[in-house]
Amino acid sequence: MNVEVMRNVFARNDALAGETRALLRQHHVTSVNLIGGAGSGKTTLLEASLPKLTGAKRVAVLEGDIATTHDADRIAAVGVPAMQLLTDGGCHLGASQVHHAIRKLPLDRLDIVFIENVGNLVCPASFDLGEERTVAVLSVAEGDDKPAKYPLLFKRANAVVLTKLDLLPHVTFDIERCTRYIRQLNDAAPIFPVSARTDQGIDEWVTWLTAPAGQ
Amino acid sequence: MNVEVMRNVFARNDALAGETRALLRQHHVTSVNLIGGAGSGKTTLLEASLPKLTGAKRVAVLEGDIATTHDADRIAAVGVPAMQLLTDGGCHLGASQVHHAIRKLPLDRLDIVFIENVGNLVCPASFDLGEERTVAVLSVAEGDDKPAKYPLLFKRANAVVLTKLDLLPHVTFDIERCTRYIRQLNDAAPIFPVSARTDQGIDEWVTWLTAPAGQ
Repeated sequence: MNVEVMRNVFARNDALAGETRALLRQHHVTSVNLIGGAGSGKTTLLEASLPKLTGAKRVAVLEGDIATTHDADRIAAVGVPAMQLLTDGGCHLGASQVHHAIRKLPLDRLDIVFIENVGNLVCPASFDLGEERTVAVLSVAEGDDKPAKYPLLFKRANAVVLTKLDLLPHVTFDIERCTRYIRQLNDAAPIFPVSARTDQGIDEWVTWLTAPAGQ
Repeated sequence: MNVEVMRNVFARNDALAGETRALLRQHHVTSVNLIGGAGSGKTTLLEASLPKLTGAKRVAVLEGDIATTHDADRIAAVGVPAMQLLTDGGCHLGASQVHHAIRKLPLDRLDIVFIENVGNLVCPASFDLGEERTVAVLSVAEGDDKPAKYPLLFKRANAVVLTKLDLLPHVTFDIERCTRYIRQLNDAAPIFPVSARTDQGIDEWVTWLTAPAGQ
């Protein structure tokens, strides 16, 4: 790719992400960008977390996908307003698409906006969407070496959620080894091993979500 | 992205892919481009398949990754020559990188070259590498709706391998529903449900690999 073109793409993206960030701060809305591969369990994590949040917090979800409204339908089914953002082939959400969606939300009546990115461990990590917190989602079925092989996301993440913990007896995944790979890139991000099926770890993750950023 | 720039990127890629294709045909070498998400089980599939192939066929593997030589090391450990292609952040292999690697291989002494793409269900599907067969790899841990949500790869694939079949009792994955989604996009590609752990289905997949293309 032409370097100058890429530089312009990132500059435009970052400018709009900055506007989104300012707008969300002005309305005291926290935002979370969930990034992980297809099938890493991002939507299922939301399905398990939202019912625990919505008593205390007012929440909306932006669902990024290439095609279908499956994920927005799943979020709406748990009673949380969801907007489907389709990239029509694009491999990540961009700040422009998110900015336009954010401007349509009733920000004065929200506390947290989740942005579920397109299922992809790679490209979404390069694009700031103006979120306060970037969260890496990795399922234990994907293998414990993924942070080493896809470092950018894990370097940038403010937290890492290891999903599908219930599969641990059936797969080759060493949480300690995975943690070491993450720590080589990132010494601050808390790591939450969770299972949406058994509810294990979901409370700890939800507590982090509701605590002020920087905790 | 600027449309003209993207058109040039694809035109350059396709020209080099054409050269690779001609070169491989000239040497009667079959080539297989494995595309699937990070942790979908591409390398493990190769580890299970290569020992069944190498009696009859002479094989080499090009391993595409963003970082680390983990995968090439794993292939070399089963006694098959492997070359690691690092994209240094890039989200897919390009025809240029593959072409340069192919030219370094002893093509007169090979029957099959596997190209394991970067772990990503999205971007690699847009780039022809000059391969004879494109194979989609999807693990049952990723969910049965992935063909609908990431259609380009499944539309283009000459075969679909559903991996980690041993996890089926522990996950929500309906093979019939997944097959219906694949068939909405692609009515010809054979679908191979396999487990590298139990060896289930590996023979059928290996038989397909060794049959002439178009079968």
